Amino acid sequence: MKETFIKILEEVELNDPILIEALPGIGHVGKLAADHIIHELNATKFAELYSPSFPPQVLVDDDGVVETMKNEFYYLKSEGKKEKDFIILAGNTQGLSPEGQYEICSIILDFVEKYGTKEIFTLGGLGTGHPVDKPKIFGAATSIEIAEILKKHNVTLRSADGGIIGASGLLLGLSMLRNMKGACLMGETPGYFIDAEAAKALLSVLLELLDIELDTEKLEERAKETRKMISKAEQMEREMMERMHLKPGEEDLRYIG
Amino acid sequence: MKETFIKILEEVELNDPILIEALPGIGHVGKLAADHIIHELNATKFAELYSPSFPPQVLVDDDGVVETMKNEFYYLKSEGKKEKDFIILAGNTQGLSPEGQYEICSIILDFVEKYGTKEIFTLGGLGTGHPVDKPKIFGAATSIEIAEILKKHNVTLRSADGGIIGASGLLLGLSMLRNMKGACLMGETPGYFIDAEAAKALLSVLLELLDIELDTEKLEERAKETRKMISKAEQMEREMMERMHLKPGEEDLRYIG
Amino acid sequence: MKETFIKILEEVELNDPILIEALPGIGHVGKLAADHIIHELNATKFAELYSPSFPPQVLVDDDGVVETMKNEFYYLKSEGKKEKDFIILAGNTQGLSPEGQYEICSIILDFVEKYGTKEIFTLGGLGTGHPVDKPKIFGAATSIEIAEILKKHNVTLRSADGGIIGASGLLLGLSMLRNMKGACLMGETPGYFIDAEAAKALLSVLLELLDIELDTEKLEERAKETRKMISKAEQMEREMMERMHLKPGEEDLRYIG
Amino acid sequence: MKETFIKILEEVELNDPILIEALPGIGHVGKLAADHIIHELNATKFAELYSPSFPPQVLVDDDGVVETMKNEFYYLKSEGKKEKDFIILAGNTQGLSPEGQYEICSIILDFVEKYGTKEIFTLGGLGTGHPVDKPKIFGAATSIEIAEILKKHNVTLRSADGGIIGASGLLLGLSMLRNMKGACLMGETPGYFIDAEAAKALLSVLLELLDIELDTEKLEERAKETRKMISKAEQMEREMMERMHLKPGEEDLRYIG
Repeated sequence: MKETFIKILEEVELNDPILIEALPGIGHVGKLAADHIIHELNATKFAELYSPSFPPQVLVDDDGVVETMKNEFYYLKSEGKKEKDFIILAGNTQGLSPEGQYEICSIILDFVEKYGTKEIFTLGGLGTGHPVDKPKIFGAATSIEIAEILKKHNVTLRSADGGIIGASGLLLGLSMLRNMKGACLMGETPGYFIDAEAAKALLSVLLELLDIELDTEKLEERAKETRKMISKAEQMEREMMERMHLKPGEEDLRYIG
Repeated sequence: MKETFIKILEEVELNDPILIEALPGIGHVGKLAADHIIHELNATKFAELYSPSFPPQVLVDDDGVVETMKNEFYYLKSEGKKEKDFIILAGNTQGLSPEGQYEICSIILDFVEKYGTKEIFTLGGLGTGHPVDKPKIFGAATSIEIAEILKKHNVTLRSADGGIIGASGLLLGLSMLRNMKGACLMGETPGYFIDAEAAKALLSVLLELLDIELDTEKLEERAKETRKMISKAEQMEREMMERMHLKPGEEDLRYIG
Repeated sequence: MKETFIKILEEVELNDPILIEALPGIGHVGKLAADHIIHELNATKFAELYSPSFPPQVLVDDDGVVETMKNEFYYLKSEGKKEKDFIILAGNTQGLSPEGQYEICSIILDFVEKYGTKEIFTLGGLGTGHPVDKPKIFGAATSIEIAEILKKHNVTLRSADGGIIGASGLLLGLSMLRNMKGACLMGETPGYFIDAEAAKALLSVLLELLDIELDTEKLEERAKETRKMISKAEQMEREMMERMHLKPGEEDLRYIG
Repeated sequence: MKETFIKILEEVELNDPILIEALPGIGHVGKLAADHIIHELNATKFAELYSPSFPPQVLVDDDGVVETMKNEFYYLKSEGKKEKDFIILAGNTQGLSPEGQYEICSIILDFVEKYGTKEIFTLGGLGTGHPVDKPKIFGAATSIEIAEILKKHNVTLRSADGGIIGASGLLLGLSMLRNMKGACLMGETPGYFIDAEAAKALLSVLLELLDIELDTEKLEERAKETRKMISKAEQMEREMMERMHLKPGEEDLRYIG
């Protein structure tokens, strides 16, 4: 595998679908929110993306079955005929290198553009590094007009205090070069655990903006499971890294298993 | 050399060979186990793989002769006519960059697929970072069915506590995209020395699964030699790294000799 | 996006334009100086450069609007008919990887060469790591003749005490392979804040060398704004990095948002 | 510049030239020895190699003139008609990434092979990290036969205590895939300064092996100059790195100037 590629699982026609991106990131806020939409509204997976810029590893699920690193495209048909459909981009990883991120995000935009996508919402977490009482939702947009709309939905504009790193930022930036429009929404989070509170707050703003109805009660439940799974994985990884840092001569073992 | 390539040393026909991967990794557990099979059963080397993603260096053997960084393919014919043959993948290194790992693993799978490989076992170590009394064997599989078989052979399923990093994980993940099936077996090991105990435990499970008979007595002996050789190398490397860390301005000298 | 590319915004003819490079770097000294020229003399943006080697992120402006990572080409017509025009290269980032820097700088030189560029000035800061009373201007040139001219303008030659890292150095080096000529000017700066003093000192030498007249009073004002904006961004980034360093297992989150 | 390339300065015919590699590395031992040969025997530069995997920077010489990062090929005609000529590979840098090192070394071997090179000597330092009384010369070879010859010239075989990192190792390893033969010679050195003693010891073994006569007296003098120049550069770089390490948010500034 020398190039990022998309494997199409189902041919589908979509009506000007809005892209909702929620790849794993700080506090898994965006991922949690998007996974909730996918499950509650029975979104259908129709494509998978694989990339040589993903981490060279696999995950293992609860049954001991190997899971490859990938991004996944789900579609969600809206009920009204004239309404826009949705494409939800989820997955278990992001590209590691800058060049990989640029390649992957460009391929994602090429792909959704073929379905007619002109709008894009990217979801993420904004890590504060300290406990958060009632998570604010931060945002940035591709135009002042959209930024104004965000403000009306109680989104705090990110206004010049730092960039948006990773796919959430890059997809938005690259979409501007294609005359797409959109926004990034970030749930405020301490950042060092799976944050269902932030995801819930993020989700409620997103649903309002997209005019979707959805019960967010089960989100906390889903968060518990995910939290358990990921904290284990992180503990593992942390131990590996610590061992490596103690023994600098083996630093390269990171990619060796 | 801009691309990974395989140099074929002997043309051979194999009967649906099972791939056994054992590249160097944590505790050299997998490598030790596979090297033992290769030597005891007189497996024949038939191909070598070279890659620009390998470390830019050479090793030196006991006679002062330079050894290039490479992966090696050995075959092992099974005695019964209808039995499956084996391809053993060994070597002295793995790819350094994520992109390199993906390229190398894809080329490995392309190569063995031509010989008819549909099954794959990857071997590795699972580092605990602390002393291990009686090494457990951990495992993960490409399907629930195979995971169940592993359990019957006293393999502890890795179930969701971290991924499998490097070739052992990636080969398995990429094989799933080709409808191959297989499993990863990992010997529990402290991780900071050549662990013959873990290799022995790993080997006995593997031999059981593959229905191969083999004396594992000499494994401890082989481990002693390897241990001596590698600990020297590690000491050397550690000293280099320490000197570099003390003198940050020379960090880049890592690739300079 | 797999390749660096330049998007031309305006077709323009220029008279042997002198390239002035001032991408962000230590103390933002060069950038500050060039931005001042651009604004005070109303230079016109005529092209933008995008690269997959830029950081995989976006910035956000004061209105909450996303800004993509890019380099920008401005032109400035000189008033006299026979005088040389100017191309000013500004932007919000540089390439991250060595390979990316080489690619980007080569594409920049290809581009300006088409307009007839034969001379090049690159601007930067020279970080001392400690407070600076009255910033000196350091310099290096593509020939002894130009080095002598620099000396006459009170530029201290950098003479063999370290190289010039990044676009300021590389553009100059690569320009020599094309028989262009030029110099790098670096304002002495502590290096850890936006340094308007250094920029002012740098600008006055540059204006002298280029025989341009320009009021440098407003530079301090502009510096204040920029300083405010960038220190916020840096604080943000620093917090992110610190959190990451505390939690080594999440190091890769750097590219995840 | 997307690819490594060689610029030929003089067309020349050589008689089965022996390649002597001495790119900068630990203690600059190899570089010092080779530079001495080049100057004392008036070797002629006939080609330069440029690569996007070199550090994205320039050096500055004593006159404030910029020097690009490059490798340089010199030839040295032997006096006897039937004797082999020499190609000496010197320069101010090596490739930074593994992939870059592989690409550069392959291109170097392609290049010298065209001139008929079948033998190769690579020179380097072996860093001990502590003071060295009388520097030993360590070595490794492409065959047992050559290793035996080295031993007869008082070279200590490196025998399995670590590899040879960088161009000195990699050129030798890759040359074996082309059926060239050769050896690496390494002068024992503390490693943290320009080591003329080690270079002198290395040179005397090399001259013996190649049957060249040369006065090594001036080597110490040359070392003094080089030492002065490089220690300045290192001090500079160290200061930069220290500042960066104190301010993690600016880590990327490494490539920014």
